[in-house]
Amino acid sequence: MHEFALIKEFFEKQNLHRPEVILGIGDDAAIISPPANKELVITTDSLVAEVHFFLNDSPYDIGYKSLAVNLSDLAAMGATPAWVTLALTLPEANERWLKDFCNGFFVLANQFNTQLIGGDLTKGPLSITVTAIGHIPKNAALRRDKAEIGDFIFVTNTLGDAGYALRFQNSLEKLKRPEPQVLIGEKLPGIANAAIDISDGLVGDLKHILEKSHVGATIFVDDIPLSKTLTDSLPKEKAIELALTAGDDYELCFTVPEKQLENLKKALENFSYQCIGKITEKSGLALQYKNGETYVLKNQSYQHF
Amino acid sequence: MHEFALIKEFFEKQNLHRPEVILGIGDDAAIISPPANKELVITTDSLVAEVHFFLNDSPYDIGYKSLAVNLSDLAAMGATPAWVTLALTLPEANERWLKDFCNGFFVLANQFNTQLIGGDLTKGPLSITVTAIGHIPKNAALRRDKAEIGDFIFVTNTLGDAGYALRFQNSLEKLKRPEPQVLIGEKLPGIANAAIDISDGLVGDLKHILEKSHVGATIFVDDIPLSKTLTDSLPKEKAIELALTAGDDYELCFTVPEKQLENLKKALENFSYQCIGKITEKSGLALQYKNGETYVLKNQSYQHF
Repeated sequence: MHEFALIKEFFEKQNLHRPEVILGIGDDAAIISPPANKELVITTDSLVAEVHFFLNDSPYDIGYKSLAVNLSDLAAMGATPAWVTLALTLPEANERWLKDFCNGFFVLANQFNTQLIGGDLTKGPLSITVTAIGHIPKNAALRRDKAEIGDFIFVTNTLGDAGYALRFQNSLEKLKRPEPQVLIGEKLPGIANAAIDISDGLVGDLKHILEKSHVGATIFVDDIPLSKTLTDSLPKEKAIELALTAGDDYELCFTVPEKQLENLKKALENFSYQCIGKITEKSGLALQYKNGETYVLKNQSYQHF
Repeated sequence: MHEFALIKEFFEKQNLHRPEVILGIGDDAAIISPPANKELVITTDSLVAEVHFFLNDSPYDIGYKSLAVNLSDLAAMGATPAWVTLALTLPEANERWLKDFCNGFFVLANQFNTQLIGGDLTKGPLSITVTAIGHIPKNAALRRDKAEIGDFIFVTNTLGDAGYALRFQNSLEKLKRPEPQVLIGEKLPGIANAAIDISDGLVGDLKHILEKSHVGATIFVDDIPLSKTLTDSLPKEKAIELALTAGDDYELCFTVPEKQLENLKKALENFSYQCIGKITEKSGLALQYKNGETYVLKNQSYQHF
C-alpha cells in the first residue's frame, strides 16, 4: 500500500465525528467551524524513537502516548480537547505496526471525544508529532504566569511512578500509558491561578510557573503524594527524589488562592490531589521537611540538550 | 544552551504579534481568540532529512520550505494563514544552524503575517513538522470534492521547474524556496469549484480532485505552462513529462465553471495562470495534444512508500 492507501486504511477509520468538523482527513487541509465565544488552546509535542520511547515498545503504547502527552498539555490549560493532527514518520510501511499504533491512538482519542482531522505520513526515522487543539471559555485558561503569593500548591494523584518504572522496572502502565488529567484540568478554570503538567519533573516544571509568575515557592517534601509501589520499594529519601525530579508522570501541578479552597474541594471531590506547599514572595524554590529541615536535591530534571 | 534557553533565544524572537493571539510561545499551549464568523483551516506537513531535503542543504532554505509547504496547503483551500506551530527534531543544538533556520522560517512567516505560537524542540534525526492554521469565510473553502463536469482546469505560473532543478541542477530557488500561492488562493473562493496544491506532480494531484469529485478530466499537454529554463534546456516531450509528473512545484491546480471565467479574469489580473483542460463526465485522466493525439505518460508521481 502506498501513502494515500495507508492513510485511508488506518487513519480515516476513527469512529468519531464531531459536529463542528466540516471536513476531516483527505483534502489539503481540514475545515473546522470553531465554537462561538470560546478561545482555542493549541499545543504540539513530538515523540522520537530512542529518545522518548524505545524502538521495540509496543506500537499501541507509542500511539497512546503520542496523544496522551498532548492532551496533558491541554489539561494543564484547563481546556477541553477537540481536534488533533498526526504527523507520523516511519522507516517502512509496516501495516501490522500501523494498525496497533492507531488502536492505541484512537482508544485515547475516543475516550476524550477528540477527532483526528488530518496529518502527514512520511518515510524516515520513527517519530510522531501531534498537534492538539482544545477550547475553553474566554479568559478562563490556566497559565504559568498567574500564580500569586500565598497560593497553595497542589499536585494530582501520585508522583515519581513513571521514573520508578523507567529505572527499576521493565514495564509499567504509568510510564507507557500516562493518563492525561483532562477531567481535573477542566474543573480548574475559575479556581486555580496557574497550572502546568509535570512532564520533566516537579522541580523543573514548577520552576516554570515561578519564573513566569515572578514568585517563589516552598514545597514540603513529606506531603508529596507517593504510590504504595514507591514507598514499599524504595527508601523514603529515594522515593522523594524520584517524585521531585523524574519526568513522564503527566500529573498536573496547580496553584490555588486561599479563597478558592472550598470551591476546589467541591470541584475535585471525586479526584485524588494533594497540597504540597505554598507560593512565596521570596524567589526560588525551597524544599523542606515539615520539621523545618532543608531537603537537599541531588539531581535536576530532564534536559533535552 | 538547553531546550528552554534555545526556544527563548531563537523561537520567541519573531517580530510579529497578531491581535487574536492571547498567549504565544512559553506555556503548556497557546491561546487564540479565533475570528468570529470564520471557519478555521488546519494542515500539517513534515519534512524529513534525506527524504524531503538534503542534510547539507542550507538551514535557511529548510526553515523556509518547512513553512512554505504548509502555507501552500492553506492556499489550496483559499484560506488566509494566521498561526503556526513548529516541531523541530535536531541531532544537536547547533546555534548557528538554528539561527539560519529561524531566519528562513520567519522571513516567510512575516511575509504572510503568520505568527509562530508554539512548538517543540527535541533531540533526534533531523525533521521538521509544521502545523499551519488559517481562516476563511464560512462555506467558502476550496475542496477537492467539488469539481463539476464542464469546469475549466487551471494551474498557476509554470510547472516542472522544481523537478528540473532536482534532476539537472545543483540548486534552484524554485526547489529550495517554493513560493506558496497564498495570494492567488485567497482570490478563488466563490470563483473556483475545487483546488489542490501540486506537491507530488500535476497528474498525481489532479487525480485526487477527480476521485473525490467523481469526475474525469482531459488535459491538453501543449497548454501546460513551462518556464523558459525548461523549454530552452529540454526537448519538448521531456519538459512536458516533468511538468506532468515532477513534484515540489507548489503551484495551485483549480477548476472553474464557465459562468465564473469573467470573475476569474478580474480576480487574477495581476497573476500568472493558465487553462490546461476541462473536467469531463468520462472518468479517468486523458492526456492529449491539441491535435487530438494521445500523450503517453512514462512516469508516475512521487510515492512515499
